[in-house]
Amino acid sequence: MTRQPGRNLPIGVFDSGVGGLTVLKAIRVALPEEHLLYLGDTARLPYGTKSARSVLRYATRAVAHLQERGIKLLVVACNTASAVALDELKKTLAPLPVIGVVEPGAIAAVRTCPGGRHLVLATEATVSLGAYGKAIRELDSKASVIELACELLVALAEEGWTQGDVAEGIVRKYLDAHLEQDPSSRPESLILGCTHFPILWPVIRSVVDDSIAVVDSAMTTAVVVESYLRDRGIANAGGQGSLKLLATDGARRFARVGGSFLGTPLSVDDIELVDL
Amino acid sequence: MTRQPGRNLPIGVFDSGVGGLTVLKAIRVALPEEHLLYLGDTARLPYGTKSARSVLRYATRAVAHLQERGIKLLVVACNTASAVALDELKKTLAPLPVIGVVEPGAIAAVRTCPGGRHLVLATEATVSLGAYGKAIRELDSKASVIELACELLVALAEEGWTQGDVAEGIVRKYLDAHLEQDPSSRPESLILGCTHFPILWPVIRSVVDDSIAVVDSAMTTAVVVESYLRDRGIANAGGQGSLKLLATDGARRFARVGGSFLGTPLSVDDIELVDL
Repeated sequence: MTRQPGRNLPIGVFDSGVGGLTVLKAIRVALPEEHLLYLGDTARLPYGTKSARSVLRYATRAVAHLQERGIKLLVVACNTASAVALDELKKTLAPLPVIGVVEPGAIAAVRTCPGGRHLVLATEATVSLGAYGKAIRELDSKASVIELACELLVALAEEGWTQGDVAEGIVRKYLDAHLEQDPSSRPESLILGCTHFPILWPVIRSVVDDSIAVVDSAMTTAVVVESYLRDRGIANAGGQGSLKLLATDGARRFARVGGSFLGTPLSVDDIELVDL
Repeated sequence: MTRQPGRNLPIGVFDSGVGGLTVLKAIRVALPEEHLLYLGDTARLPYGTKSARSVLRYATRAVAHLQERGIKLLVVACNTASAVALDELKKTLAPLPVIGVVEPGAIAAVRTCPGGRHLVLATEATVSLGAYGKAIRELDSKASVIELACELLVALAEEGWTQGDVAEGIVRKYLDAHLEQDPSSRPESLILGCTHFPILWPVIRSVVDDSIAVVDSAMTTAVVVESYLRDRGIANAGGQGSLKLLATDGARRFARVGGSFLGTPLSVDDIELVDL
């Protein structure tokens, strides 16, 4: 394999806030030798309740910053931005490769339940675009998809109330109507279509019985990234990878909330503020 | 009373989103003859989790737009913006009079429980500045104040889950440690220090026993606005007032969520989008 220019450059990982750290964590596990440059657009979060126009504008500005710093690949680790802006970002950043999280999530769901009934939990913006429905039906014309906006789960994850009665009550309130259906129409897979939701996995699992598969796009996205780099010979080899965290606002809050998403405590000094 | 120039101009009411509509509603009840121009900075909401620097920047840009359209008085109907940016906005907009919601809330609390123990429910940004504590202690040196960040209540109000087990569970989780205290240290007043919280009043009241007064700054702010206009002879008299709603993003969401805050159904056509 020839040594490609740029293989030592970091992988850029972009999100509206801290949720994308669940994807970053999966990439770190899969690719421990890679340098990772994360940008959370905390000054403009959440994207999930904003219009497509605003999300596109914010995301374009943010990823341009990552491109200027020098990256070899961009991961849009935000379901809303992936749903709204992925095609546009690919055009803007070309020839830089761009990988979103919706398609990997759809691939994982279709592999888990071919021809199945899928229930997607996501933000309002992702749901209003029907992004998962489109991606899944393109891969599997027999699949059926219901997309459900669950904004309160975002706030719940950010507040760190990831277990207990309140968390369970909120999850049940969103899901009960779907889970109580007749087995012939009940969902067979539940897709965590927002990067905030993996930290709620234990409470979701406690509400959803084992007959329903819970699909999280973070790990699938990491696998897609790994394949992409290896196929093109631009994976970093040898030595320990590194992690650099950027945010557009609120380093203290980013450290506190982000630590729980990353699964590693963060301090304010770990975050570099950038003004976009 | 001489006719002042500008008395027919609207009162500007500014908030980060739809929460300020609870204040607007109170002003409409108190002053039905006034024209009201509301701006919700929905493209940049929520302010409550952003840094003081970002809140100041966003608020300054937004209120400049209201001033350009022509208003006779500005109400900053957002606790976070009032806590963070009121002094700065007064300087920037001078000689336009500017009224925030923190001071009226503090006045109402001190009147209700002189020398009392106050518990303030607010956003992270408002709490981190200790705005209510300062305002109350300036009015009443014997008062004691605890400020509690309750971000999940904002999301709860926006989701419209204003009653039932989930709402009660969330309110209890925030308040139980304070309500279970010995009567000699339990709060005597509970201040709704975020404009989203008045629509949660019934569930908060069901959790908090009658020995604790619940203080909402919306009505007090309306009274302060009324006094200000009448004292200076610039209240509008005669004829029916009007309402114009502006938002910086997401007219559909503004109409849906805002309607529940305003207590009147809104349609997309009621909202004018402005690009700041």
